[in-house]
Amino acid sequence: MSAYLQLEDRFRRAALLGDAEGILHWDMSTMMPEGSANGRGEQLAVLKRAGHEIITAPETESLLDEAAEATAGLDEWQQANLAEMRRNWIHANAVPGDLVEALSKAASSCEMEWRRARAENDFPGILPFLETVLTLVREVAAAKSQALDCSPYDALLDEYEPGGRCADIDVLFTDLRAFLPGFLERVRQHQASEPEILMPEGPFPVAAQRDLGLKLMAGAGFDFNRGRLDISLHPFCGGASEDVRITSRYDEDDFTQGLMGVMHETGHALYEFGLPGDRRYQPVGRARSMSLHESQSLLVEMQVCRSRAFLVSAAPLMRAAFAASGPAWEVDNLSRLYTRVRPGFIRVDADEVTYPAHVILRYDLERAMIGGDLLPADLPGAWNEGMQRLLGIVPKTDREGCLQDIHWFDGAWGYFPTYTLGAMSAAQIFASAKASDAGIVPAIEKGDFTPLMAWLRANIHSKGSLLSVPDLMQSATGAPLSTAAFKRHLEERYLGGKC
Amino acid sequence: MSAYLQLEDRFRRAALLGDAEGILHWDMSTMMPEGSANGRGEQLAVLKRAGHEIITAPETESLLDEAAEATAGLDEWQQANLAEMRRNWIHANAVPGDLVEALSKAASSCEMEWRRARAENDFPGILPFLETVLTLVREVAAAKSQALDCSPYDALLDEYEPGGRCADIDVLFTDLRAFLPGFLERVRQHQASEPEILMPEGPFPVAAQRDLGLKLMAGAGFDFNRGRLDISLHPFCGGASEDVRITSRYDEDDFTQGLMGVMHETGHALYEFGLPGDRRYQPVGRARSMSLHESQSLLVEMQVCRSRAFLVSAAPLMRAAFAASGPAWEVDNLSRLYTRVRPGFIRVDADEVTYPAHVILRYDLERAMIGGDLLPADLPGAWNEGMQRLLGIVPKTDREGCLQDIHWFDGAWGYFPTYTLGAMSAAQIFASAKASDAGIVPAIEKGDFTPLMAWLRANIHSKGSLLSVPDLMQSATGAPLSTAAFKRHLEERYLGGKC
Repeated sequence: MSAYLQLEDRFRRAALLGDAEGILHWDMSTMMPEGSANGRGEQLAVLKRAGHEIITAPETESLLDEAAEATAGLDEWQQANLAEMRRNWIHANAVPGDLVEALSKAASSCEMEWRRARAENDFPGILPFLETVLTLVREVAAAKSQALDCSPYDALLDEYEPGGRCADIDVLFTDLRAFLPGFLERVRQHQASEPEILMPEGPFPVAAQRDLGLKLMAGAGFDFNRGRLDISLHPFCGGASEDVRITSRYDEDDFTQGLMGVMHETGHALYEFGLPGDRRYQPVGRARSMSLHESQSLLVEMQVCRSRAFLVSAAPLMRAAFAASGPAWEVDNLSRLYTRVRPGFIRVDADEVTYPAHVILRYDLERAMIGGDLLPADLPGAWNEGMQRLLGIVPKTDREGCLQDIHWFDGAWGYFPTYTLGAMSAAQIFASAKASDAGIVPAIEKGDFTPLMAWLRANIHSKGSLLSVPDLMQSATGAPLSTAAFKRHLEERYLGGKC
Repeated sequence: MSAYLQLEDRFRRAALLGDAEGILHWDMSTMMPEGSANGRGEQLAVLKRAGHEIITAPETESLLDEAAEATAGLDEWQQANLAEMRRNWIHANAVPGDLVEALSKAASSCEMEWRRARAENDFPGILPFLETVLTLVREVAAAKSQALDCSPYDALLDEYEPGGRCADIDVLFTDLRAFLPGFLERVRQHQASEPEILMPEGPFPVAAQRDLGLKLMAGAGFDFNRGRLDISLHPFCGGASEDVRITSRYDEDDFTQGLMGVMHETGHALYEFGLPGDRRYQPVGRARSMSLHESQSLLVEMQVCRSRAFLVSAAPLMRAAFAASGPAWEVDNLSRLYTRVRPGFIRVDADEVTYPAHVILRYDLERAMIGGDLLPADLPGAWNEGMQRLLGIVPKTDREGCLQDIHWFDGAWGYFPTYTLGAMSAAQIFASAKASDAGIVPAIEKGDFTPLMAWLRANIHSKGSLLSVPDLMQSATGAPLSTAAFKRHLEERYLGGKC
């Protein structure tokens, strides 16, 4: 067997262990009894280590070298795959197996403790767990920084956003930092002159919310033969390559946020379903990056599902789901409700105008913590100060502040900026899609996602990791990622009357 | 680190991979969307292979040899653990990794196909899958037969029943083969003279059945902080060491069988919960054997939950669960219902008098198939012929015949005899428990399992795999396993008016 094919076998086994991890992590968040948390943490750590050992075995490096000498027989997908294998190897090889296992275990136990601490607003209780996780993450960052020849923070970011660097992100974020405060003020003035928003009145039983979500998921093309919808504390899209598990959470007094949560995760799931099946289990067959992943969830949630076009088709389904009627359920009101802008404490509930401020806050804070310039003990103060500066509001509790997100507690550092990169990418990609197929929006008005999904499949999903992030954006949209389409979208929707 | 401690680390990692497998298998049977079956099969195969590689790595053998030279510092648990490690190593090392992975994959896909084939009564459709599984199982049996110096069938049996051999089983089964037909006839005559059994009238909504099951599980001591109850096609007790997942299935026209299914699996779960926690993830900390495991499920289901004592406490809960009343719900009638003897087609629904015939049929057939004397294609005919001979009835469909059980289709060959060994062990163990603590039965009449569980914990559960199966039976009951207690139990319950 050629060196390349031997590598394919190795990476396939590692990917399958990763898939097993994905299902176990889904189970931990949705099904597992609490008392089993320790055991689950041990299982995940051993799995992570076993996958790490496959990639870092000395044979892998020799095979990578050997395959690099013999690329003549490889097609473009195989060559891209080989490059991705090397990238994965560099990441894995930089970190000793003991550290991989220790971080996995610390993250699992911190995540389980976070569930309690968040519910009980207990930052002091979670602090020692968070400190342990951060210490281990900083060790990982230092090791990868050397291997990748970049800053420790960039080395973490590179796991989620291959090739992503703060220097590039800062250019985009500086633009948003300058644009958003003034824009937010204009939107508030504009919305103050609009009719008052009526809240649909509940209660909205969880079962009915779930059924409505399932209907809209099906309409968007979610494949229930290869996926599920369940409930978890923090909504996510996880599971395995052929088995996409999304979750949401429901508020019986307000169905609107939970429903958009379902559609957000559905966007992630549709990307997974659309990846090239014949490259499954190979690095090149994976989603390109977390910003691209988020672009797909935000394209579905923000660009599509909060648009008037979508609400025209969804409003009757909403009314039917809750046997409701009246002015609060009219498309105009729902449209205003779903595009209402107002600063709030919770990132996942934020509108798209204030959302970047939530991300910028976390981006600043996690860079400072990775750099050693901010101690976890000082996080609540720094958080509240940042909220005051960026959005002019201060949460009364850490539950609504630095305890709200799972990321830092379960070890995902360097992930946050991908949300706003995703929002910008979503705007740019959707603009290209609409320009390329004038039938996309009229179909959405009928609840038909087919033309949109066909375009996304062809231009984003089916590409897997064949191209770099910038090359994929260039090929799909004809331009590098910039803030332009995102700002244009915001201006049209929030000031121009087009939503 | 000493050789022994290095071994502990290795076996711990293998056990954790096994736990991960357990959860993934549970998910496959309860939660997984059907279209994800292929991916799951691949995941399980890679996990199984990773665990196999840890045990068969050349270092493991050297460490086993080294540790065997230095047992002076080891306590009795560690020495027993070392012996179990050697046993596991012999089993694993006999089989090449490729075969392990191939069998795991074949079994997963055959199991998924079996779900369809069983529903559609399609033996011809499942036959090629079954043939593939059997071919691979026979390869495993041949390899292990050499390593263990026993027959191929004994080598398979030894996985489930360490030290178990057909020669010993045949002595016990021959006794039952002689005893049961005449006994069955006497029971039928005896029961013909009893009042007619009234069936409680449904429908019995699944949710209410589930709630009743949860109540009785809690009463028996099931720890919901470390376990769950769900639904699957074939009831089982699975999951992981600290995370015991049991399943049942429900018939809305008849709650009685589903409920006993729940209590049966609860018996398995209580064994798992009672294993020595400080030996968790070590071979010596595992359940001793499948016959012992089945002894615990049958002790709870057959010895306890079908007894009049238990029904005294359970009948009011049953009536409350379904808001029912009347003569069918009286303890006397329920007791007759739960001890009714009549030959039927389905093993898991069989009464304890006819159950051994179901096992003997499968034991005969699987030995013949492993020996090459019966081809899978001839299974339906051989099955029906055996049913006629052993129970005097012939199923009209394979669905009620050779398609009913999951075992052969998911690769568990050599497992069936442990059910009847378990039934005999249950009778012998429960008799000892009652003789040792006269408070056990009066407590059960009040729905209190505490004294029984205390005795089982002390004498069976907490021993893990410290002793061999015969030594454990001797230590717990003062005698080797025989048919005596089982026959005495049957005579007392079914002829003597004591139930």
